[in-house]
Amino acid sequence: MSLGDFLFGKPLASFEDSEQRLGPLAGIGVFGLDALSSAAYGPEAALTLLIPLGALGIQYVVPISTGIIVLLTIVFISYLQTIAAYPGGGGSYTVARENLGPHAALLAAAALIVDYILVVAVGISAGVGALVSAIPSLQPHTLAICLGILVAVTLVNLRGIRETGNVFMVPTYAFILSLLAAIVWGLVKALLSGGHPTPVIPPSPLKGTATVAGAWVLLQAFSSGCTAMTGVEAVSNGVKAFREPAVQSARRTLTAIIGILILMLGGIAWLARLYQVGASDPGEPGYQSVLSQLVAAVSGHGVFYFATMASVVVVLALSANTAFSDFPRLCQIVAGDGYLPHGFTSRGRRLVFSQGIYVLAFLAGLLLFIFNGVTDRLIPLFAVGAFLAFTLSQAGMVVHWKRNGGRGARQSMFINGLGAIATAITLVVVLSAKFLEGAWVTVLLIPSLLILMFAVHRHYNAVGKELELKTPLDLTHLNPPIVVVPIQSWNKIAQKGLRFAINLSTDVYVLQVKIGESEDLRASWCHLVEGPILELGLPVPKLTVVESPYRLLFRPILDFVTGLAGKYPDRYIAVLIPELVEGHWYHYFLHNQRAAVLKGLLLLKGNQRINVVNVPWYLTE
Amino acid sequence: MSLGDFLFGKPLASFEDSEQRLGPLAGIGVFGLDALSSAAYGPEAALTLLIPLGALGIQYVVPISTGIIVLLTIVFISYLQTIAAYPGGGGSYTVARENLGPHAALLAAAALIVDYILVVAVGISAGVGALVSAIPSLQPHTLAICLGILVAVTLVNLRGIRETGNVFMVPTYAFILSLLAAIVWGLVKALLSGGHPTPVIPPSPLKGTATVAGAWVLLQAFSSGCTAMTGVEAVSNGVKAFREPAVQSARRTLTAIIGILILMLGGIAWLARLYQVGASDPGEPGYQSVLSQLVAAVSGHGVFYFATMASVVVVLALSANTAFSDFPRLCQIVAGDGYLPHGFTSRGRRLVFSQGIYVLAFLAGLLLFIFNGVTDRLIPLFAVGAFLAFTLSQAGMVVHWKRNGGRGARQSMFINGLGAIATAITLVVVLSAKFLEGAWVTVLLIPSLLILMFAVHRHYNAVGKELELKTPLDLTHLNPPIVVVPIQSWNKIAQKGLRFAINLSTDVYVLQVKIGESEDLRASWCHLVEGPILELGLPVPKLTVVESPYRLLFRPILDFVTGLAGKYPDRYIAVLIPELVEGHWYHYFLHNQRAAVLKGLLLLKGNQRINVVNVPWYLTE
Repeated sequence: MSLGDFLFGKPLASFEDSEQRLGPLAGIGVFGLDALSSAAYGPEAALTLLIPLGALGIQYVVPISTGIIVLLTIVFISYLQTIAAYPGGGGSYTVARENLGPHAALLAAAALIVDYILVVAVGISAGVGALVSAIPSLQPHTLAICLGILVAVTLVNLRGIRETGNVFMVPTYAFILSLLAAIVWGLVKALLSGGHPTPVIPPSPLKGTATVAGAWVLLQAFSSGCTAMTGVEAVSNGVKAFREPAVQSARRTLTAIIGILILMLGGIAWLARLYQVGASDPGEPGYQSVLSQLVAAVSGHGVFYFATMASVVVVLALSANTAFSDFPRLCQIVAGDGYLPHGFTSRGRRLVFSQGIYVLAFLAGLLLFIFNGVTDRLIPLFAVGAFLAFTLSQAGMVVHWKRNGGRGARQSMFINGLGAIATAITLVVVLSAKFLEGAWVTVLLIPSLLILMFAVHRHYNAVGKELELKTPLDLTHLNPPIVVVPIQSWNKIAQKGLRFAINLSTDVYVLQVKIGESEDLRASWCHLVEGPILELGLPVPKLTVVESPYRLLFRPILDFVTGLAGKYPDRYIAVLIPELVEGHWYHYFLHNQRAAVLKGLLLLKGNQRINVVNVPWYLTE
Repeated sequence: MSLGDFLFGKPLASFEDSEQRLGPLAGIGVFGLDALSSAAYGPEAALTLLIPLGALGIQYVVPISTGIIVLLTIVFISYLQTIAAYPGGGGSYTVARENLGPHAALLAAAALIVDYILVVAVGISAGVGALVSAIPSLQPHTLAICLGILVAVTLVNLRGIRETGNVFMVPTYAFILSLLAAIVWGLVKALLSGGHPTPVIPPSPLKGTATVAGAWVLLQAFSSGCTAMTGVEAVSNGVKAFREPAVQSARRTLTAIIGILILMLGGIAWLARLYQVGASDPGEPGYQSVLSQLVAAVSGHGVFYFATMASVVVVLALSANTAFSDFPRLCQIVAGDGYLPHGFTSRGRRLVFSQGIYVLAFLAGLLLFIFNGVTDRLIPLFAVGAFLAFTLSQAGMVVHWKRNGGRGARQSMFINGLGAIATAITLVVVLSAKFLEGAWVTVLLIPSLLILMFAVHRHYNAVGKELELKTPLDLTHLNPPIVVVPIQSWNKIAQKGLRFAINLSTDVYVLQVKIGESEDLRASWCHLVEGPILELGLPVPKLTVVESPYRLLFRPILDFVTGLAGKYPDRYIAVLIPELVEGHWYHYFLHNQRAAVLKGLLLLKGNQRINVVNVPWYLTE
């Protein structure tokens, strides 16, 4: 087994694609981790903004969560429809492209690309952050652990989507089961105690004392809680990754993900109110996350508590996986339209779009490296991308229904319109609330990416136009090329080159650049070459010897070749370069690398009519 | 003015060589610094071994120095004769090669190569060591200063030998004049005081109390003092660097160097006895070098003292220059005989052998880096190389006189024989005295270098034999090659490649490797290619379409080419690779680099009959 097979698995043939596809069960692990893991930080984000309100704030948890769940449901329905309408995948990008035009589509794509890169860095960093706060001795190794997880997730994803699904199944279901169990346990306890359960371990005391809640605070809490919605678009980007019937499998997966997410969000909100759990300030000593307080209140600090918290940490760290499934697919679709390098469209050995995986891993790794593994400051950034994409996708679906009509089109239009307005408002709130905290970076990044994508498209268009050929092969002006053979002395390599040149053309020029005291080829030319050729009546190669007082080799050759090209404007020139190929790398220093340099220079400084023929000589030694 | 011109000076033509040559005045700065600077440490090295003898030791300074001067004179006479006998340069290597055979010659070369690398590192390090002990605040920057001096010396040497001579003239003569002035001043004072001068500043008290001197101690002191002789061979290696008549110029230069050196050595010894100056232990507080004590005793701590000591520091740091003049010349001569890579024989833009300069700078820099700029521990190593070379050179001259005879041959033989025996004894003494201190490294290094040189020679011999061709051009079996054109789709690049292929041969194979859903060329082949070609009655290119289920591009092409080569064992194959050349480096990521990879793979995996034709397409965009 080769190292490549060991690391990445055996190559998969293109026809094995169908065997690689996912069912809903594995689909949740591949596309759902981003959305599901947000149950761990969405409610916390909302509650953090309610800290100043104290006990009053907790009264608002349930209505705010209800609002989020309603918005989530609208977006969910919209993506269900998107999956059916655009089974080729591409989610927001495809919807926007088909209905709003390429500019809106690229805006959505740029927003999602930025979002995904941030999600990977922030997700891994958040998981590792929770880990090192539980085991402080790991603190100095934060960056190393982050990069280790990044490499592991990258490797798993390079091994193909089915293997990814299998690997991520266990942590995903451990997380879902333990969190749902905690919620059910807490609700049952509350029910048995008549709605007033006694926490096993009491939550942190609430400090705020406000008696009136301002609308702006509630709106901010709502929009912060909306970070729980990121990752909802994931399935719609990857419809093609699902088992046939793909649309049905994808819709089932999305439904399962959103169903579980709603249960979690609603359950956490309800429990927070019942057990009077509020957020505490992460900067203060004795900080505990809302989820940790909740589970401790329900179950105490037993095995269950630690198992649940461990699964939360693992899922946070692995939430990056969703981006690894979606980013390459999104880039592939955008690259297919010519707005990103073509490389994104090639499938690697395991049928995944490897280049996208590499690029994502590199960029996220760079972010982790720059921020030394602590990316808290990036958290405000990534909701912007997601909500921009949501808004464009919803707006696109409105146009879609308007155009296509059909049964229930009016209702769908209404729902998507409502969704578009709601997500647009959320976007504006997030942007204005978090602008100075860092959201401005996204506002710079997305347009830069847009400009880049347009530049790529312009370049490809120009090249495409330049190379396009609809007509059959043009056979006018066929003419053997003028062949130039640079030779330094007479040996078997030179003979091989000259023989090959005579095979190719009747116009052969031999060029010797004389440096220092090397032997002049003119002395023996008649005996070595002219004689035998005249004997056979063949056209004689023309020998030119050039003195090079400054010991330059390449410039005289280039000058000679471009001179010939100028003299014969209707002829092709073939520069024939005899090259010694060393058998061992350590012979590199023993032979000059003139042939390689000359090939490079001719390519760099040449023109349309100068071609290079490389005649290798392999040492038998 | 280009950056290259600014750093290295304008290129020099080969015919400008004679203007670059040196007279004796500049020659002393270029070839003499190593020998002259050793006056600063040779006597000190001898006196250090005499410390245990106290005042008694100082009695032995004059006889020991006399011995060294006698040996120096013998070696000097020998090299004077060498210069006349071998005006091509190469010193010990050439003498040994001509008289003792290639093994002895390579032994001398290896010894000198090791010697020169060490001399550069140790010389710079010693100068910087003296500097930082005078200005301790520079201590933390020792390595940086060392490497800075190394780069400066390298740059000066790359600018050509005449410029080097000019640059080094000032420090050389400042050193010579100030040191000779100190000696004369001291001797005059002693004379005026009737042989018992009062030191202006008394030297360090003598601690040793021995009353009898052992022979082994005296022998060790003698051999340590002999380090003053390193660098004597320098002129003989570089005879060709001197102005015509080169032999005369070189001999004059050598005579001047040795004359000044003898004056210095004798003067220092005499003064040490007159002023009762002994060495002190460098490890102890209040350490002062012998030279510093002497000059202070003669002149006090005035301007003269500081100027003299400054010139000593500068000359120590620049003594590396001799190695920079000699090492590349030695390597060039050895490479010319095929025992080192041919690259050493090419002259750079300023007519010096640049590769030797680069290699020396790199290796010495590596040593400085490894030892962090403090190379005291390397000092015992380098006398070994020098004395090995001396011995071989003297022995070679004995054989030379025996063979050639002539006037005075007997006396010369006697002198050289005496020299050979004396230097051989010194070598043995140095080796045994310093073996454990580090000289064993040299004993390992020199044979390793020898083995390497023999391996290089074997390789060049084998290649030379394989490529040698004495017969005229063989014109049997001329036959146009089979041309293979890999094409992915029909466009102008493909058309250009196909047209060129048709120009070259009547046997053209077009190969399409089908990956994924790309268009099958067979569908349009008849319309695009076959039709127009049949119309003109030309032979039709054969199209092969290969499916590649594992999405590999290169392997199918390589398989096809090697398959053809196997099928037609008497034909050459030319693989014609159309290539898009990007106009800007930042377009690199936008286009696949398949052409470049394929060219590389074909060269690596190909065979004698597979050639590569590169047809570039330059984007006009």
